[in-house]
Amino acid sequence: MLKPIDAALARSVVRLRVRFYETDLMGIVHHGSYVGYLEVARVEWLRRRGVAYVSWAQRGLHMAVVDLTLRYRAPARFDDEIDVEVALGEWRAATIRFDYRLLRVGDGVLLAEGATRLACVDDKGALKRVHDEMADVLARGEAV
Amino acid sequence: MLKPIDAALARSVVRLRVRFYETDLMGIVHHGSYVGYLEVARVEWLRRRGVAYVSWAQRGLHMAVVDLTLRYRAPARFDDEIDVEVALGEWRAATIRFDYRLLRVGDGVLLAEGATRLACVDDKGALKRVHDEMADVLARGEAV
Amino acid sequence: MLKPIDAALARSVVRLRVRFYETDLMGIVHHGSYVGYLEVARVEWLRRRGVAYVSWAQRGLHMAVVDLTLRYRAPARFDDEIDVEVALGEWRAATIRFDYRLLRVGDGVLLAEGATRLACVDDKGALKRVHDEMADVLARGEAV
Amino acid sequence: MLKPIDAALARSVVRLRVRFYETDLMGIVHHGSYVGYLEVARVEWLRRRGVAYVSWAQRGLHMAVVDLTLRYRAPARFDDEIDVEVALGEWRAATIRFDYRLLRVGDGVLLAEGATRLACVDDKGALKRVHDEMADVLARGEAV
Repeated sequence: MLKPIDAALARSVVRLRVRFYETDLMGIVHHGSYVGYLEVARVEWLRRRGVAYVSWAQRGLHMAVVDLTLRYRAPARFDDEIDVEVALGEWRAATIRFDYRLLRVGDGVLLAEGATRLACVDDKGALKRVHDEMADVLARGEAV
Repeated sequence: MLKPIDAALARSVVRLRVRFYETDLMGIVHHGSYVGYLEVARVEWLRRRGVAYVSWAQRGLHMAVVDLTLRYRAPARFDDEIDVEVALGEWRAATIRFDYRLLRVGDGVLLAEGATRLACVDDKGALKRVHDEMADVLARGEAV
Repeated sequence: MLKPIDAALARSVVRLRVRFYETDLMGIVHHGSYVGYLEVARVEWLRRRGVAYVSWAQRGLHMAVVDLTLRYRAPARFDDEIDVEVALGEWRAATIRFDYRLLRVGDGVLLAEGATRLACVDDKGALKRVHDEMADVLARGEAV
Repeated sequence: MLKPIDAALARSVVRLRVRFYETDLMGIVHHGSYVGYLEVARVEWLRRRGVAYVSWAQRGLHMAVVDLTLRYRAPARFDDEIDVEVALGEWRAATIRFDYRLLRVGDGVLLAEGATRLACVDDKGALKRVHDEMADVLARGEAV
């Protein structure tokens, strides 16, 4: 059962900078480092809607990644600034999907696109419905 | 243009053990750590067919990941031994795809499934056709 | 041969936030993650003095870590904001040492102290004297 | 109060292989990756003495790193095999110290030396004395 999403409210842009240790011997950002970028962007998406994800984690409410997709379009390099566009793309009873586009600040080159599907689980890893408090947040836009 | 693949020859199983630092505060393996497991498995897949990938990298022949998919089925934990089944799944003019299944040794639980599409690129990142030397290797089974 | 250092000019404070993937199953930041924090702080220390370290790296001027020391005083946790105090602590012909103190923003708790000694090396890893351009930067304070 | 150590019993050698993602844009192993190598070696040191560290962690017995020192002697590279020599170097009431030497297999080059001091802590991070079960293990050599 899909919940409706307001595309304008559901989108944030999170800026970060490539760290030296995120590169590999090809001289570019290692493809695995992007997984961390998506994670940082999700946490900031929530913070912009008034939620410290850490407070959920402390109460045993986790959003576990169950699916991950990444398409690499152009190499990112050390010290690049990256804008991670993150948007709530799908909202079901027990899972949500975030979609991402990573663009290099400056030249606007599309570096990568991706998606993560997340499931609500408790401390034991048992699947939970999206609880009301979480639902409130998902429907929110960035706080002004 | 697809090249034919002999499924029996194209498959290897690489065993590894979860490291402490690969876990996160949920007490399980962080979803990003699996990207490294796939990479280790690809490198060993080549080694079993007589190729040290490092020797290609030194000559400027890289197999860059252009697509990554991971589906997480059950959490892996610190010190788990994991069998990574890795198989050449598709072979085109300039890209190949490896498919993966990760199973916990002992109970045989399926932990994750995934795929990576790789493109042959040179030191500048320019796309190359799969060169003959590489093609020879891709058609090979594990050395006896 | 030690070069004199102006302690007031030589110090910067770089703020960062703990990422989810930097934690481990003990529920705290993994001790290895601090190595990255020191690196981020060094790169920002240079940027505040007008230098993009990436431009040096592209020209084959590297500051390779030759010694690393870290003392862990209190656990950092996911989403903590950390102020990394970084100061040029010693300046010799071919090596420099940065000293670090990491404090949690908010309660000011000392999380860790550390030091890294760095050697100037070229692309082949051969030791170089601190070149004049680098020396200029090391003597500078933060740009106003 | 120092406990006596039998140097011959206290030493193990753990072999591992450098992973691609452990390198950086200098083309060598990133200095932070060595922290993981020491950790892997400690876990194997315990396993060779009959202990799965994971079983301690599950019961809330942790050996937290409180001090870390690394001296980098020569660069390690992708796919290098490394022998990590790990020895119990000091044993006090509530802390122990492991000493490490990392040598490249093949040419025997010393890549790095290091030490970690570890404190016994419970799930809350409170300091504990080395418990008897742990003490038994520390006094043991490798199982035959």
